[in-house]
Amino acid sequence: MKREARTTRLAPSPWQKAESTGARAQQRGEETRIYGLNACLAAFARRPEALRKVYLTEARIPALKQVLAWCVKHRLGYRVVEEADLEKLTASRHHEGVCFDMLRAAPLDLADLLALQPEDPAPSLLLWLDGVGNPHNLGALLRSAAHFGAGGAIVPAQSGLDLSGAAARVAEGAAEVVPLAHAPADASTHAALRAAGYKIAATVPREGTDLYDAALPARLVLAFGAESEGMSEPLIAAADLKLTIPGSGAVESLNVAASVAVILGEYWRQHAHAPLPRGRR
Amino acid sequence: MKREARTTRLAPSPWQKAESTGARAQQRGEETRIYGLNACLAAFARRPEALRKVYLTEARIPALKQVLAWCVKHRLGYRVVEEADLEKLTASRHHEGVCFDMLRAAPLDLADLLALQPEDPAPSLLLWLDGVGNPHNLGALLRSAAHFGAGGAIVPAQSGLDLSGAAARVAEGAAEVVPLAHAPADASTHAALRAAGYKIAATVPREGTDLYDAALPARLVLAFGAESEGMSEPLIAAADLKLTIPGSGAVESLNVAASVAVILGEYWRQHAHAPLPRGRR
Repeated sequence: MKREARTTRLAPSPWQKAESTGARAQQRGEETRIYGLNACLAAFARRPEALRKVYLTEARIPALKQVLAWCVKHRLGYRVVEEADLEKLTASRHHEGVCFDMLRAAPLDLADLLALQPEDPAPSLLLWLDGVGNPHNLGALLRSAAHFGAGGAIVPAQSGLDLSGAAARVAEGAAEVVPLAHAPADASTHAALRAAGYKIAATVPREGTDLYDAALPARLVLAFGAESEGMSEPLIAAADLKLTIPGSGAVESLNVAASVAVILGEYWRQHAHAPLPRGRR
Repeated sequence: MKREARTTRLAPSPWQKAESTGARAQQRGEETRIYGLNACLAAFARRPEALRKVYLTEARIPALKQVLAWCVKHRLGYRVVEEADLEKLTASRHHEGVCFDMLRAAPLDLADLLALQPEDPAPSLLLWLDGVGNPHNLGALLRSAAHFGAGGAIVPAQSGLDLSGAAARVAEGAAEVVPLAHAPADASTHAALRAAGYKIAATVPREGTDLYDAALPARLVLAFGAESEGMSEPLIAAADLKLTIPGSGAVESLNVAASVAVILGEYWRQHAHAPLPRGRR
């Protein structure tokens, strides 16, 4: 019953060249492995030039026809492999029959991210993640951010917080819609955001303003802390408002990805849902 | 550097007896393995008598002092093990130094679940999960359900949808707060829920009533479908209302756990947040 993994290698790919010239270790740091059908298709649609290598099961050939044609045209390697090979390559059972090696999107700096947003005073929503470390949470919250039209997410430059394969898969392509920017959690970032007309809301598990009593500013940066430690004290202290999601008290707090979804939903209700800017709906 | 896993076994535990009498295979089906510090502590606080076996790292001894005292008193086995052993026992790296084998809470039937809820016409919220299969999603949505005070979750009797270790860990103890009931996805369940004064809302990715245009009934059963297939057509057709969470359209839909969080938040805003029943806050 066991079949050999078949190799369909068309031409030396850049990946192979890098390997053969000893530059592989360096290049590895610039590549990321993403998996899941929607995540891979979204990444390809947005940045086909970043594709480096494709692994897929035989059953996925029809769904990935365009990608494979691109590989042939651009002399990129692809391999038809077994489910078990993909489990090893992705370290996950949720690969859905495909994984891509891609060059990472260059992280933006804060000025680039702000340049992508609608100008003050138009409504605009950004996330500021102060150390969300679980890739499943990162992926889930980016998917919610994409759903509710957030314009980007700021992550600490030094955090290593990044779009691992698991995060990209859970994000179901959202990782390719919501740009990430690196910026330090300090006064310079606060100043740049305020200069662009944003208010900063820190989310805290208790003693903040009840989310449903708060009038959310139209230009808003929502700051979230790490899963276990919460947000850093200086970031909370410097925020323009502190928000708490009310609840029964039966559990300590909401999961960070659920918190993001709830607050983005309330922002949508207050702003995107208003009668005038229906173009956003 | 490699150390032996140490065993601190105090007395023959029921688990060992079961093993030695050959009843282990049967008992296995009635036991569940949960992990994560909060999940384990919450389960112990609620149902100490269901505890069967404890595995913990040396570093967790102080945090689990009460549990270990209970084990000694009730002659239950516990073992101090290495991180690597817990990874194997839980098939996860997120065990946080502890796992418990516990008897499963007997699933309720619908009548029992309804008997636990406030009587008509008091506000009451239940979830109806028509096949959520990912344990991470199940755990996350139960945590949100506990946070927002949902009174329980209905799952199909035949689904095998259950609180695996991963679900219980992600739920952070919520699995012990939100009772699960087994009921078929058919007209008999609809009738029983309606007789108890509930309206049934199906959540659909598009073409339902905009969540933020909907007046949510105070006695509400929120029905959610499986991650990939969505909800079954008969369940949607029989619902009293269909809800859609509005969004940018940038991604296909919200993750099911995020959807649950967003709708429960809106229910809270409309009902629990109303000026009168502040006792619930």
